[in-house]
Amino acid sequence: MCDTCGCETRGVRTIDVNERLLASNSSTAEHNRQHFIARRTFAINLMGTPGAGKTALLEATIGRWRSNQRIAVVEGDQATARDSARIRSAGASAVQVETGLGCHLDAAQVHRALHGVELGEGDLLFIENVGNLVCPALFDLGEHLRVVVTSPTEGVDKPLKYPPMFRAADIVVLNKCDLLEHVPFQLEEWTSYVFATNPNATIIRTSALTGDGIDGWLREIEKRRSGLMMEKAG
Amino acid sequence: MCDTCGCETRGVRTIDVNERLLASNSSTAEHNRQHFIARRTFAINLMGTPGAGKTALLEATIGRWRSNQRIAVVEGDQATARDSARIRSAGASAVQVETGLGCHLDAAQVHRALHGVELGEGDLLFIENVGNLVCPALFDLGEHLRVVVTSPTEGVDKPLKYPPMFRAADIVVLNKCDLLEHVPFQLEEWTSYVFATNPNATIIRTSALTGDGIDGWLREIEKRRSGLMMEKAG
Repeated sequence: MCDTCGCETRGVRTIDVNERLLASNSSTAEHNRQHFIARRTFAINLMGTPGAGKTALLEATIGRWRSNQRIAVVEGDQATARDSARIRSAGASAVQVETGLGCHLDAAQVHRALHGVELGEGDLLFIENVGNLVCPALFDLGEHLRVVVTSPTEGVDKPLKYPPMFRAADIVVLNKCDLLEHVPFQLEEWTSYVFATNPNATIIRTSALTGDGIDGWLREIEKRRSGLMMEKAG
Repeated sequence: MCDTCGCETRGVRTIDVNERLLASNSSTAEHNRQHFIARRTFAINLMGTPGAGKTALLEATIGRWRSNQRIAVVEGDQATARDSARIRSAGASAVQVETGLGCHLDAAQVHRALHGVELGEGDLLFIENVGNLVCPALFDLGEHLRVVVTSPTEGVDKPLKYPPMFRAADIVVLNKCDLLEHVPFQLEEWTSYVFATNPNATIIRTSALTGDGIDGWLREIEKRRSGLMMEKAG
């Protein structure tokens, strides 16, 4: 009851709506998974806040990837094709998805984008989600691996304050480690919060700007990719 | 049509759902506005990515606010009461709203929180939204002023890539200006993108960490607050 006018609060039944959206999304995600299996492609959903360095990490990845497998990227942004242009300049193919008001990529958008991507056995597909530490965590895209990219400038407490994203992640990349000396950020405290939220997370420290840590990131991706390929072959 | 199985893509009718949610939210926002008018309170919706420094800006604001008007804060986070504890330590009252899976504050959540806040003539209410550069832009909370807090670490192109948020903002705060010398960020380029997206935006540069620019921010808030009070009295 409201003390100004005595009316009942008109709550929005957001949860019911979300459940219907998520059920529909899950069935399309399952369909995407069949695409990836049919093409024997390894798919990675890259999430994180705007400006965490997701595109810069992809540029560094494309520039150093020594495998004979190709990389393709589905780029999600509310507006502009700037990121897909950066990806193409770095040497990979890219499909831009502009979401307009949308806050995340859903499985149907990825499904449509897949038809514009050439992928074959052992290739890598990165899906760079809309910059958002909240909504993308809820939407299965059919991917094999979920990565959240974060940075020391975001402060130590984000794993505690945004638990769905950090729980959803297989790998947590702490990017922009070149800034560690310039910001108030306690690495041990942050690490303890990541593991308190998700004990199974793998943490990788990088600087896409200087290249530090990129080799470790590439090794981890290759380990996961070849693991999947062997599993499918076995 | 899908080239793997020939099925039709099952798109989610997100836009229809959003329209219903937003219509319901708008009527509650209008109700909140009546609260603010009845109490003659100035309400500010503070938005931005996680880690842009919204809470730090509020701490600096509370610490230096020399007016005899009080400050209260509604704190939105997915989880924890860490930010409301920080606000109370800084000397203002605070109500924490934990949104769980929710990606933004809606008008109904703010309405419920208002019942836990003591506010009177000329007082300031800050609503610190969930850290998210996307969704909060769509939800009217009944506020008088919309502020987006951003930082040079996010890169120059965010006004172009996230236009709904930058269009919605009355004031764009570029916080963490102490990091300008440590990150690749061209201030003139970013400024041109802000004005290309929103020609009416007011830009304010701050560092909540060092205190630089906080006086200018306080003057702007006071100007807007007293302007509204005079308008109502006139």
